[in-house]
Amino acid sequence: MVRSKQTDPKSAFGRAVRRLREGKGLSQEALAELADIHRTYIGDVERGTRNIALVNMTQIATALGVPLSRLISEMEKEL
Amino acid sequence: MVRSKQTDPKSAFGRAVRRLREGKGLSQEALAELADIHRTYIGDVERGTRNIALVNMTQIATALGVPLSRLISEMEKEL
Repeated sequence: MVRSKQTDPKSAFGRAVRRLREGKGLSQEALAELADIHRTYIGDVERGTRNIALVNMTQIATALGVPLSRLISEMEKEL
Repeated sequence: MVRSKQTDPKSAFGRAVRRLREGKGLSQEALAELADIHRTYIGDVERGTRNIALVNMTQIATALGVPLSRLISEMEKEL
């Protein structure tokens, strides 16, 4: 299914990650290091071009210091 | 990383899907049809053998009639 950027969960997730990351004053590089994920992958996720899977989502939430349910709630606010 | 079934987010997610699905009185087949995902894939997810990605997670939550944040909260209770 083709979705607009507005309603695509991948884009909404990316926007939520970016917002929380910037709120913590972290660079993409710092988040990547904390989450043990490659920096370019974090960039792709924030741009909404990755259909990120559960394990990586969990690592990013942990690196942002929030439960994954909170990160997903933030995503839902972006939809 | 190798994790025990107890702390593996994939297993916890699977248990949460199963619990919510059974709470709705849905068979795996009915959930699969509602979510537009193959029945064997739903079975794999419930057994915790799939690192399910965001788009499929969203489709399963919608089919279960809950926001994805709620499904993830249920997952966190299983951890």
